[in-house]
Amino acid sequence: MSKRLYFEDFEPGERVETGTHVFTEEEILRFAREFDPQPFHISPQAAQASIYQGIIASGWHTCSVIMRLMCDNYLLQSEAMGSPGVEEIRWLKPVRPGDVLRGVRTTLSARASGSKPDRGMVEMRWEGVNQREELVVSMRSVGLFKRKPSH
Amino acid sequence: MSKRLYFEDFEPGERVETGTHVFTEEEILRFAREFDPQPFHISPQAAQASIYQGIIASGWHTCSVIMRLMCDNYLLQSEAMGSPGVEEIRWLKPVRPGDVLRGVRTTLSARASGSKPDRGMVEMRWEGVNQREELVVSMRSVGLFKRKPSH
Repeated sequence: MSKRLYFEDFEPGERVETGTHVFTEEEILRFAREFDPQPFHISPQAAQASIYQGIIASGWHTCSVIMRLMCDNYLLQSEAMGSPGVEEIRWLKPVRPGDVLRGVRTTLSARASGSKPDRGMVEMRWEGVNQREELVVSMRSVGLFKRKPSH
Repeated sequence: MSKRLYFEDFEPGERVETGTHVFTEEEILRFAREFDPQPFHISPQAAQASIYQGIIASGWHTCSVIMRLMCDNYLLQSEAMGSPGVEEIRWLKPVRPGDVLRGVRTTLSARASGSKPDRGMVEMRWEGVNQREELVVSMRSVGLFKRKPSH
């Protein structure tokens, strides 16, 4: 069994690439029809006439895909206990059908909880970079992780 | 045809309720399996043993549902041009199967663009309140809207 990641395993400054996801038009439309049916997300014709000049993914879809990349890269192998929130989501460039998004995570800080000795808080920058090396999405994520039993 | 909402139609201080959404276990699991397959989102057994003591919705699912409530309440009737980002997402309480989330939006500020005379930026607080009147999710959303042609 592979090593589980605890609070103590996250090192401020570490930068890790997390794999890629290809956005198909089908999934962009499917997500947007359910959660964000604005014309530039669901109608190729209306999107063409908009300032985006074509279908773009909902920002919430982009964030959700980043979440999945982070799950597959480290969260599912870690003693994660959820998150109180996220800061500074920036949708910097449109995500279009066929775009390939690569996740990058950078550990910013790690702080043991003062009130709850079993856990600590890890702050990361989560980024998505497309196939043209453009930074597409960025956010500061805060996560709770169990401390090592031996600490 | 109903009146379209432009930048000028958003009044700082206005507070509007936006309708409700019922979270079913099926949709919580479906979203989480695709985007956020952490044990407390996808496995009733593992969730029971976690600090959440039962299945909870992914925070990204909660945000996406709030987005849909906002689309149906005003965005689809407005000259919305997308969003550069979101500030201060706070997942304050778990969302569980059967919970009913009500959206609330409060306009915080409205500022015409200095560089692009056709648009302005509207900042809102978006909130989700459950059937026990508990504030479950909160964020500051920033949106771009067309200015009225006559301005």
